[in-house]
Parts: sequence; C-alpha cells; structure tokens
Amino acid sequence: MKILISNDDGIGSPGIDLLTRVMRTIGDVTVVAPDGGRSGMSSAFTVSKPLRLDKVFEEPGLVKYVSNGTPTDCVKLGLNEIFADEKPDLLVAGINHGANSSTAVLYSGTLGCVFEGCENDVLSIGFSLCNHSWATSTQYLEPYILPIVKKIIGLNPPKGLCFNVNAPEGPIKGAVLTRQCRGHWGKEFEHRVDPHGRDYYWLTGEYFNHEPDATDTDETALSNGYISICPLKIDMTAHDYIRVMEQVNWQI
Amino acid sequence: MKILISNDDGIGSPGIDLLTRVMRTIGDVTVVAPDGGRSGMSSAFTVSKPLRLDKVFEEPGLVKYVSNGTPTDCVKLGLNEIFADEKPDLLVAGINHGANSSTAVLYSGTLGCVFEGCENDVLSIGFSLCNHSWATSTQYLEPYILPIVKKIIGLNPPKGLCFNVNAPEGPIKGAVLTRQCRGHWGKEFEHRVDPHGRDYYWLTGEYFNHEPDATDTDETALSNGYISICPLKIDMTAHDYIRVMEQVNWQI
Repeated sequence: MKILISNDDGIGSPGIDLLTRVMRTIGDVTVVAPDGGRSGMSSAFTVSKPLRLDKVFEEPGLVKYVSNGTPTDCVKLGLNEIFADEKPDLLVAGINHGANSSTAVLYSGTLGCVFEGCENDVLSIGFSLCNHSWATSTQYLEPYILPIVKKIIGLNPPKGLCFNVNAPEGPIKGAVLTRQCRGHWGKEFEHRVDPHGRDYYWLTGEYFNHEPDATDTDETALSNGYISICPLKIDMTAHDYIRVMEQVNWQI
Repeated sequence: MKILISNDDGIGSPGIDLLTRVMRTIGDVTVVAPDGGRSGMSSAFTVSKPLRLDKVFEEPGLVKYVSNGTPTDCVKLGLNEIFADEKPDLLVAGINHGANSSTAVLYSGTLGCVFEGCENDVLSIGFSLCNHSWATSTQYLEPYILPIVKKIIGLNPPKGLCFNVNAPEGPIKGAVLTRQCRGHWGKEFEHRVDPHGRDYYWLTGEYFNHEPDATDTDETALSNGYISICPLKIDMTAHDYIRVMEQVNWQI
C-alpha cells in the first residue's frame, strides 16, 4: 500500500513522526509536509510565490519531502509531482497538535490536507489530538490508529467522503461515530497598543458550544474520553434547502 | 440595515467598490477588507502575527477599514471589534474577480468571508464574476445584485446556511438555483529551475468537470449564460453516511 502523509504543524512535529512510524507498518510512506507550522491555514493554496519541494530523507519504505507551501500545497505537490503516474492508496494527515472538532473543521490545515486528498479521489483521514503541546503524551492514542485506519479502509467509502478523527488527551475509553458539533468562536481578539501608539490585535478566542447536551457530537465524545470518528463530505451544497428555494420565483 | 462587506481581492479592487456602491442604496455599509490580494486563502486565519485594523474612510452611511489579515481575519475583526455590541444584519463578500463555483468553494477567500459570517449567525452571501481581470465589465451583473440579495433576505433562511452567487462574464439570461458541480483541478504545477539550479513550482492547473452533462450544477448554469445561486451549509458532516458506518462494529 502506498501512503501519503502530510500535516499543518510542519515536518518537525512529533505528531507526524508518530503517524509515519505507525503507517510504515502497513505500507510504503511518502511524507510531504510544510517546513514549519501552518496552523489555521484551512484549504489555502499559494499562487503568489513559487513553491519548493525538496527531498530531505530516503530509505526503503520511507521518503520525506519538505515544502515552503501550505498544507494544501503539500498535498497538491505530492499528488501532482510525486504520485503523478499513480495515486496513493491512502492519505493520512496529522497527528495534529490540537483538536479539529466542531467548527475547527473550517479552519484546520490538517483537514485542508484531507479535503485535498478527497477531492482527488484518494481515501483520506485526518488525526488530531486534544492538546497543543508537542510534549503531550501520545501513548493512549497510538494503539487506536491502525485499527481505525483499517476499519475505514474496510468501509470502501464512496468518492467525496473523508474522515475526521479526534482523540482526547488522556486515557481513552473507546471510539465512537459522531457528527460535527454546532458552535462558534467568540471574544476572538486581544487588543494591544504598540510602542508607537497604534492598535493591534492577537487572535485568541473562546469556543462556545451551541449544543452542549447533544449526545452524538464530536465535542461530547471528546469530553467523555472517547475518540471521535466523523465522516465529512466536500460537497457543501445545502441540497435539502434547494427544495425550499424552489418555492420562490427566481426570475429577475 | 447594517451591512458588513469584505472580500479576498483587497480593499482596492473594482469588485468591492461596485458591491459597496450597490449595497449603500439599502443600508449603512461597513467595509473591512485586506490591504491586498488574498486569493485562494480559503478560511485561513492568522495566529502567528498581530493584526491591524485601520479606519481609512468615513462618511455618512459608509465606513471603510483595512487589515493586514486574511479575508476570514477581516470578518472576525469586523464582527468582534466593530460590531461587538450588535451584529450586522447582512454580510456580503466580493465581488470576486474570478469564478467560485464547483470545487473552488473549498479554496475561495470570498467564501471564507461568507462561512465566517454564517458561523456567527449573520446572513451571508458571496458574489463572484467569471473573469479574473479587474478591467472586466460588471454592467451585466450589476442590475441583478439587489434583486438577488432581496430575494435571499426574503427567504429568512435558517442558521448554518449561506449563499454562493456566481455570474457569467457576458450578457446574462437570468438567475437559476444550482448545486456545486463535482470536479477537480489537475496538472496543477508548472515546473521551473531557478538560476541556481534548484527546482521550483508555480501553481497553475486545469479544471476537470466530472459531470459536464448535468443540468443543475453551477458550472452548467454559468456556461449557459445564467447566474448561479447555490445554497451552502457549513456543517460538513456526511450525515447519511453515519447510518452506513453504524453497521460496522467500532469497538477497538
């Protein structure tokens, strides 16, 4: 099996090292990752500057490339330049240092990788861990990674679908299927004044869960100590609502 | 009516000027836009550097701010700092110079603005025109903008939904409801060698339509000379597929 791995924390993060180590046991791994942190990059790509793609490591079963681009650029470079003749069988992204549940799906560079693989009809799975520290323990998550990957492969899911796996930080009770929790980020900026008297703002923010009592969301799974497995689709059309809109005359 | 306007082409683009001029006829407009082009930024936000938010223009009914951030940062700054006490009634983004149909929804900074408004429960609509040139004529689109905005407001759509409006470049036959077309970008890079002998890559690419014969997609509407109005939802959960996954034992 040929496996493409990327992330948004950069080639040097412990999360991508763990994911690489685990995935090597079931296939040939090609890593294409950013040269540094690209958190919060969503599906951003780069058109305003040239991109690099440099091979930095190679041994039997493992090749690593680094790029100056976004997570999405890395996957595009991997699929177009390295896997130009034959697609990989699987893309895995992460392990992200920090949760990518609920509305974080919109902003996550890890899921940017996953969506890019999905758009190119490659089975794609993102892994994230609910702790931003690179020093956090991954011992609880590690034994779950391969079983989850194998079960998802076994589904043989249709095109256009991909998977978002989030793990709690501490001991894990099991894995459950979830949906994205509704919520939003508020109180988002810390306002400061620079030494020259000009205002500036640091993005910080606080997450507000809009359905804290729901039993089937990713947020609830994580706060109860379970791994959340959520299927996502890249078609964002509100198909049901088209039926509602058809009741209105759109002749202008 | 209080209206927030942003875009991804920057404060100086003709598209945002036209949108501002049109929207002023129905409300008080606040523009918060990037200080330059931010195409392809998706829902990226900025955590690694401080953000600016500078008022650059003010007269009755119109205030303009510029920021060094992404499109998403601009909307976040608008909603958190300018509209901290009371949300705007409407967010409109664009008019983007270039189509945001099919898979472009994933990458578009214009739709990044729209998704950010939607996540904050503000009725949000993105406008894009199928021509990247700032010199292209907007005469055909202009008379459609307000009627479309008014019809969408009249729907009083539920939370979590937003709207993606794309217009063909030339004469317009009317407006139709659509869904996102399936497709992908391929042949994405132009490979060059720099004067020092190192490889580099420019992102270019070619769009491949996976359902060219479909009659209800945004791509078909545009190629037939119609404005495409597509409802989108920010919940990306594949709800139907959860039912399929439930047939598998996820105990690990």
